[in-house]
Amino acid sequence: MHSIEQLQNIINKAIADTKYTAKPAELYEPISYLMKLGGKRMRPVLVLISTELFKGDISKALHAAIGIELFHNFTLMHDDIMDKAPLRRGNPTVHVKWNENTAILSGDVMFVEAYKLMIMVDDSILRQVLDIFSYTAAGVCQGQQADMNFETRDQVSINEYIEMIRLKTAVLLAGSMQIGALIGGADKEQAALLYEFGENLGLAFQLQDDILDVYGDPEKFGKQVGGDILADKKTYLLIKAVELAGEEKSSELNYWLNNSDAEPSKKIKSITTIYNSLGVRKLAEIEMDNYVKKALYALDKIDAESSRKALLRGFAEQLLIREH
Amino acid sequence: MHSIEQLQNIINKAIADTKYTAKPAELYEPISYLMKLGGKRMRPVLVLISTELFKGDISKALHAAIGIELFHNFTLMHDDIMDKAPLRRGNPTVHVKWNENTAILSGDVMFVEAYKLMIMVDDSILRQVLDIFSYTAAGVCQGQQADMNFETRDQVSINEYIEMIRLKTAVLLAGSMQIGALIGGADKEQAALLYEFGENLGLAFQLQDDILDVYGDPEKFGKQVGGDILADKKTYLLIKAVELAGEEKSSELNYWLNNSDAEPSKKIKSITTIYNSLGVRKLAEIEMDNYVKKALYALDKIDAESSRKALLRGFAEQLLIREH
Repeated sequence: MHSIEQLQNIINKAIADTKYTAKPAELYEPISYLMKLGGKRMRPVLVLISTELFKGDISKALHAAIGIELFHNFTLMHDDIMDKAPLRRGNPTVHVKWNENTAILSGDVMFVEAYKLMIMVDDSILRQVLDIFSYTAAGVCQGQQADMNFETRDQVSINEYIEMIRLKTAVLLAGSMQIGALIGGADKEQAALLYEFGENLGLAFQLQDDILDVYGDPEKFGKQVGGDILADKKTYLLIKAVELAGEEKSSELNYWLNNSDAEPSKKIKSITTIYNSLGVRKLAEIEMDNYVKKALYALDKIDAESSRKALLRGFAEQLLIREH
Repeated sequence: MHSIEQLQNIINKAIADTKYTAKPAELYEPISYLMKLGGKRMRPVLVLISTELFKGDISKALHAAIGIELFHNFTLMHDDIMDKAPLRRGNPTVHVKWNENTAILSGDVMFVEAYKLMIMVDDSILRQVLDIFSYTAAGVCQGQQADMNFETRDQVSINEYIEMIRLKTAVLLAGSMQIGALIGGADKEQAALLYEFGENLGLAFQLQDDILDVYGDPEKFGKQVGGDILADKKTYLLIKAVELAGEEKSSELNYWLNNSDAEPSKKIKSITTIYNSLGVRKLAEIEMDNYVKKALYALDKIDAESSRKALLRGFAEQLLIREH
């Protein structure tokens, strides 16, 4: 079995070694550029971990792992156009470095390349893998559309929010693991359990991200603390706060929301104070723990050696440890 | 065997009957909208014709046929964004009727839906069909990028132009036929011959389109006669004219090209006169005939009943008949 760092290195090497010789170069250069910007490679790592969980050979899963990472980066390339984002991992986004048309078309061909890699699995699991991948891909698009819809809506319920992050984030983590499991030799039932683990873990991760955006250690959190607040992003914390706020707190919240004149640090501080007074952090943590427990419950039911499950168990359990 | 009209009706009925129940509606409504704008359904018709050529049952090919049409319409949805086109078949394009982000994302999910339909073929041909579809899809993206590159280039050679239209247009027609043949029970070799037929036919069709844009009967030609000339589009005729023009004709051509002040009808007339004096129409017709003959040569080699080949032979031979 490999450590996470070893798996990351294997994936980064495979990505570095990939040369797109097809023409025109304008179509393929942005793919190499974006893929080589780095990142934690979480999704492909999960593919490989899931293969090893069932004693499979990761060399048989590497194409699919890279395919998942290509798909993920394709969605980033298109999302960045939609969000008009100037930077991705500190570098210019593709639509800024090249142009919007190139980012659309290069993304499209990236999606084809992702399918090409998924197709390389054995005949015996080809249909299953493609069904999961297609379901997953459609889910990610649905989640992105729901997320965009939320921006212009006044009210979003917690249930709608959970469904959105399930589609936008959790489904791809879950699908990555299910595909990795099948390549590793797991039967349908075992692979479905790993999907369940991944989906719940994904939900917990996103909730943790919402919490860290406000309460994270600026030195450890990769993004700007308070970024969601400044963007008026409808996170679990904000939705819950809107739900719980009485008349006075509501008008206070509404004063700050969509207030583009507000001094950033003051806005972050004021909204955080409202969150604190309503106790939404605690509620988010309870919800997160709930998903972690569901994930661990699914993991327990999986018929694999306990030592092989340790890595995944560790992923889940670290979410239960609070930094106060 | 069915007539083309019967096949078009079968396809239109299948499209009309398709309901996308997945949410959010914003993501799926543009798909139904674009798919129901009509068109000749040439690609899915070719899938079904190819299935029947080998005595296959078209009910087994209908999913793949609709998948091909979905893919084609996905490329139109994204191309229309890139071309900033306001209209598609006389109706507002998706990015105009909704917005650009919806057109990007709805197109992406359309591509997933296309793959989902392709995956429905029998296990025995699943990998082959997906390989062809992926190769085809990548080709179409490459062709679109090449076409966009040509817009900003001073010089394009005839060889580059042929390669561009091969990718952008011919490969999808060819792939449609190859997939239809496999579903109909053709072996690899026979299906490859039909691909060859389709690719050459596609090239001939595009060359005919270039010719008709200038010399077509305005009442029969679906688009505005002279549209390519007004758009300074690098067609076979223009590229050949640039190649053949001496000093005098070159400066005359250059006067009209990229001249946005020019009175449209005068520009069309002047450039057509240059084309006539250089005889580029005849050269385009010779090239077109060349591809038709290659197509017919491939068709001849196909091991199917002559009566079943008649429809495809007719497609090809109509291109040899000139309207003067």
